[in-house]
Amino acid sequence: MVYPKSFASDNNAPVHPDIFKAMADANQGDVVAYGDDWHTYEVEKKFKEHFGEAARVFLVFNGTGANVTSLTQLTRPYNAIVCSDTAHLQHDECGAPEKFTGCKVHTLSSNHGKVRPEQVAPLLHSIGFQHHSQPKVISITQATELGTVYTPDEIHEFSQFASKNKMYLHMDGARLANAAAYLKVSLKELVTDTGVDVLSFGGTKNGLMFGEAVVFLNEELAEGFNYVRKQSMQLASKMRYISAQFSALLSNNLWLNNANHANQMAQLLALKVSAIKGVEITRPVQTNGVFATMPKHAIEKLLKNYFFYVWDESSLEVRWMTSFCTMPQDVEDFATAVNDSF
Amino acid sequence: MVYPKSFASDNNAPVHPDIFKAMADANQGDVVAYGDDWHTYEVEKKFKEHFGEAARVFLVFNGTGANVTSLTQLTRPYNAIVCSDTAHLQHDECGAPEKFTGCKVHTLSSNHGKVRPEQVAPLLHSIGFQHHSQPKVISITQATELGTVYTPDEIHEFSQFASKNKMYLHMDGARLANAAAYLKVSLKELVTDTGVDVLSFGGTKNGLMFGEAVVFLNEELAEGFNYVRKQSMQLASKMRYISAQFSALLSNNLWLNNANHANQMAQLLALKVSAIKGVEITRPVQTNGVFATMPKHAIEKLLKNYFFYVWDESSLEVRWMTSFCTMPQDVEDFATAVNDSF
Amino acid sequence: MVYPKSFASDNNAPVHPDIFKAMADANQGDVVAYGDDWHTYEVEKKFKEHFGEAARVFLVFNGTGANVTSLTQLTRPYNAIVCSDTAHLQHDECGAPEKFTGCKVHTLSSNHGKVRPEQVAPLLHSIGFQHHSQPKVISITQATELGTVYTPDEIHEFSQFASKNKMYLHMDGARLANAAAYLKVSLKELVTDTGVDVLSFGGTKNGLMFGEAVVFLNEELAEGFNYVRKQSMQLASKMRYISAQFSALLSNNLWLNNANHANQMAQLLALKVSAIKGVEITRPVQTNGVFATMPKHAIEKLLKNYFFYVWDESSLEVRWMTSFCTMPQDVEDFATAVNDSF
Amino acid sequence: MVYPKSFASDNNAPVHPDIFKAMADANQGDVVAYGDDWHTYEVEKKFKEHFGEAARVFLVFNGTGANVTSLTQLTRPYNAIVCSDTAHLQHDECGAPEKFTGCKVHTLSSNHGKVRPEQVAPLLHSIGFQHHSQPKVISITQATELGTVYTPDEIHEFSQFASKNKMYLHMDGARLANAAAYLKVSLKELVTDTGVDVLSFGGTKNGLMFGEAVVFLNEELAEGFNYVRKQSMQLASKMRYISAQFSALLSNNLWLNNANHANQMAQLLALKVSAIKGVEITRPVQTNGVFATMPKHAIEKLLKNYFFYVWDESSLEVRWMTSFCTMPQDVEDFATAVNDSF
Repeated sequence: MVYPKSFASDNNAPVHPDIFKAMADANQGDVVAYGDDWHTYEVEKKFKEHFGEAARVFLVFNGTGANVTSLTQLTRPYNAIVCSDTAHLQHDECGAPEKFTGCKVHTLSSNHGKVRPEQVAPLLHSIGFQHHSQPKVISITQATELGTVYTPDEIHEFSQFASKNKMYLHMDGARLANAAAYLKVSLKELVTDTGVDVLSFGGTKNGLMFGEAVVFLNEELAEGFNYVRKQSMQLASKMRYISAQFSALLSNNLWLNNANHANQMAQLLALKVSAIKGVEITRPVQTNGVFATMPKHAIEKLLKNYFFYVWDESSLEVRWMTSFCTMPQDVEDFATAVNDSF
Repeated sequence: MVYPKSFASDNNAPVHPDIFKAMADANQGDVVAYGDDWHTYEVEKKFKEHFGEAARVFLVFNGTGANVTSLTQLTRPYNAIVCSDTAHLQHDECGAPEKFTGCKVHTLSSNHGKVRPEQVAPLLHSIGFQHHSQPKVISITQATELGTVYTPDEIHEFSQFASKNKMYLHMDGARLANAAAYLKVSLKELVTDTGVDVLSFGGTKNGLMFGEAVVFLNEELAEGFNYVRKQSMQLASKMRYISAQFSALLSNNLWLNNANHANQMAQLLALKVSAIKGVEITRPVQTNGVFATMPKHAIEKLLKNYFFYVWDESSLEVRWMTSFCTMPQDVEDFATAVNDSF
Repeated sequence: MVYPKSFASDNNAPVHPDIFKAMADANQGDVVAYGDDWHTYEVEKKFKEHFGEAARVFLVFNGTGANVTSLTQLTRPYNAIVCSDTAHLQHDECGAPEKFTGCKVHTLSSNHGKVRPEQVAPLLHSIGFQHHSQPKVISITQATELGTVYTPDEIHEFSQFASKNKMYLHMDGARLANAAAYLKVSLKELVTDTGVDVLSFGGTKNGLMFGEAVVFLNEELAEGFNYVRKQSMQLASKMRYISAQFSALLSNNLWLNNANHANQMAQLLALKVSAIKGVEITRPVQTNGVFATMPKHAIEKLLKNYFFYVWDESSLEVRWMTSFCTMPQDVEDFATAVNDSF
Repeated sequence: MVYPKSFASDNNAPVHPDIFKAMADANQGDVVAYGDDWHTYEVEKKFKEHFGEAARVFLVFNGTGANVTSLTQLTRPYNAIVCSDTAHLQHDECGAPEKFTGCKVHTLSSNHGKVRPEQVAPLLHSIGFQHHSQPKVISITQATELGTVYTPDEIHEFSQFASKNKMYLHMDGARLANAAAYLKVSLKELVTDTGVDVLSFGGTKNGLMFGEAVVFLNEELAEGFNYVRKQSMQLASKMRYISAQFSALLSNNLWLNNANHANQMAQLLALKVSAIKGVEITRPVQTNGVFATMPKHAIEKLLKNYFFYVWDESSLEVRWMTSFCTMPQDVEDFATAVNDSF
């Protein structure tokens, strides 16, 4: 079966050639397993270059693993985790956060995927009341699951709120690169300088084969995390292959170029489809996703040729994602298919 | 830093060229994520060829993940899991089985890593007694952590015992290929025909970059396992790259050739080092590991040039592993180094 | 310190004299522990009289224990539990359901504490999608946390919905007796005949010292539950004292008389306080709770003499509860205090 | 069904009259629930009198609850808990420690139930090795499950070992009173002064109806424990009834008198049965248990009239327990029955 270029998700893309080459280069001889190897030492330096000297990085297999291990590290089971009602950790991790942390997850109603610190405030009345889960972590997604972006100032407000209330700020950065590209800021400006405590830094959706990074911006918070990673089944034996991928991603602006390209393709896609009568763009297009509504019959017809997710069955909202390898012609073809689906 | 060839573990090896080529071949275009792709359909067929039509396979990231998800599927938290006192799941998974299954782990004293069904019998008195964890799964490792091998008859005795007592038989087959190579039997003869219920089938130690397989020999036992895998953070988004690796491994006897080679290198190593005065081989060398004792000063000197694990500090027993890419010259060099360490 | 009669909660009440006498009567000689005693056999018969022959009862320590063990029994960790956004299990169990079951808890917006089956329907789109927690249990509270009551027909609609979608219906009946008293129906009509699968039957709030009952209306669902109870730290050694309490409660209509009395006192309280200018009753008064709003300064003044919960800080809604031992004069005194607080 | 006086367990006994009277006295009027009442303030003072001013006490429902919540408080899930191979937490809690803490439990081979600090030493090689559960708590039982007793010096050695290795010392004191009675030392000398970190202090086996106490000797360790208790389903709403029981137990030397009496009855029983040919006492009789072997046919005959536990089926070892309410005549009768069983 051959699919055409996919607009279903950025994880339908293959591995970027530079990343693949780095893996091939790493495929030489024996090295010690579990991260005690020079590829891993090297990538740790790269992360410090991007996130500052205090950063401590731990590589894991996937995004759910990065989120869940981060949250486990920051909590006791009687804590509560607060996130947007569109958060990946709430919807798309099959309850892994609850299972592994034991915590309750509270959701806040979001505006195009974004939430605000003041929405957390009402939950603070639970602090000190023994019958209630104790709020401890705010997790925000950057870029959000709806493709929108928090500004550094907005993130800083969250970290101040968290700090003031003895909470932590976690960032699910599965698409952090896309947000940085949109904002034209460095990773340090976007994460370290805004006061994030722990970051899940995405690789797979930005050109890697597999691998995400848990980045502690505050090194004290990392104490004992190697055991959490291992117990969470997220410690790779042949670690060098994740390390080599991230080293390539963090070199020569590859992370940024990939993200920029994906974002531009989303802009192009938005431009094309918004010209089609019956298609309504529903969310600000800031990163690499385009959300739109179209009639049910058109969705069904389009799905015969392209697999993608109907984000909301009731409102007939669909999600189309672009990636580092989406080509302008792919967008043209897809827009034509959208048009033909009516 | 350049290490010489490693005898620390078979996971210090790189990726086998045929496996790597399969990944490169798979790196073409977009495919649907999470296993709904033709690479994965293909590998499912391969597994059925090797394990029979009833087999249901689920690919995961690593060995701990394969063991823990298998055990989770077979148990309720009030159950007990029984294994050898040398079992990987008891020692080297940082408590992941307890954390994720909630079960108690009972260990049986082993003879060169092997245990016998009659050792499980005394635990059965707990059945029906509400204060005791209820024994439900026997997990045996094939080949064992000490390099020894269960015969098909021995495994069959376990499955009969399990079945008779409404228990399940799990096999940790991180090095199943090495056992099959030693026994000169097919995977089907070794696993399916002996009555194993669920198998953790190893890939990483036999030439893969990452990836293990949970194989249910009884398809009814697999119900709902896709949720267990996801919630256990073991579902890869770009699944095709694990699938392609396993397809290559299970083709052209690569799994067997790799294992045979590693086993032969262990034989060669055992031959060489047993000739060195002061080195005592401590375990039958049946697969790809050599266990030996040697004086403390010699261990310490050898460790300066070669990283490996001291298996038992008190008895000064060390473990040396070979892999698909260990060369005879590597063995010669290592044996010389052992000799020189005295 | 001597408090006046409390309107904070029905669990601020002492033990009903008939219940206390039953404990004293049971305090004779030695009996086998953990429920293998005639007091427990006796209470099991009583439960069958009230809930039908298929009922299986397991006594536990408290309401959180009853809910959590019930939900654990009905789920696997990848399931989701659905309840009202006012549910005790969501708010007042410090995350015990998530910690112990591993499940996600989904809440539905409620109308005076009540929800409807059609609100569950949108969650069903997750069925079969491996990234989502699989909805498995609907838990409704009877009477609700806001004092309202589901009719038998409404419960039956839930059980039909659940059954049709391979889900279970759990009822948190911490105040079931109050609901039955309001509806003038038997426990069997209210629970067994409406298709409830598992019930948490409250004792402590209706005159017991401690003790709640998990009642399986479908005995097959109870398989292995004795291990769940033990592992959940909810198995009392001197079980006879819980059994004796429940035997007394279920005899001579004590359960009903206590509930009726508490309900009547709530009616009286509602009548009295609704006559006070500045007090607005906010919820239908159907059982033993009165919810009302009053000005902040009045709440603060009243709290100096009576401890009670401010249910919602933002809307200045307070909760006042009555119990089996609230006397008409207590209500008069309290109403006077409310009036004087302005 | 009427059983004769039981020698099966000290929890087959009824409630001591002084304890029962205290509950009756507490059964007056309304008091605030969940421990915010004067009975509870009172008992907290009593505990400080017995264990020192730094002691922080939290009352829970049962012994498994006391152990599990203590251990949860002291650990992260990647830790290991070390105990005797006869420990209640290993055998008789249906895996609750693993389920709730997520930790691995390591057992040490015991001598009549007792272990020594040097046996823990080999486990320390796991410290810092990410694949291994990290040893964090040593739990010893006082008196042990086999009725033997640790001296204050022996306990002090444990606490020094623990402290030196950044571990904690937990004491399962389900029968602490019996140990103190045997040793003729105060609770403070036995627990606080020996360096125990957290104690599970037993009540039910020493005359209470229900209720155990978690006592933190180091108050910093208690931070957040109220949430652990609640989330563990161990927070009683009508707390006053547990508090009143413990207040009575800790007054007028009742705890000590009950224990002394039970111990003396065990001495009497040992004296009587050791005179019977075919009965061999197997353990030092230091507290309120007598362990003995006798022929299978005699055990079976005796079991027809008296329920008790066969401790070890293979060695035909039985356990007979005495309690505060065992009378000399009961012992005589039982010894006669033992004699008649041959």
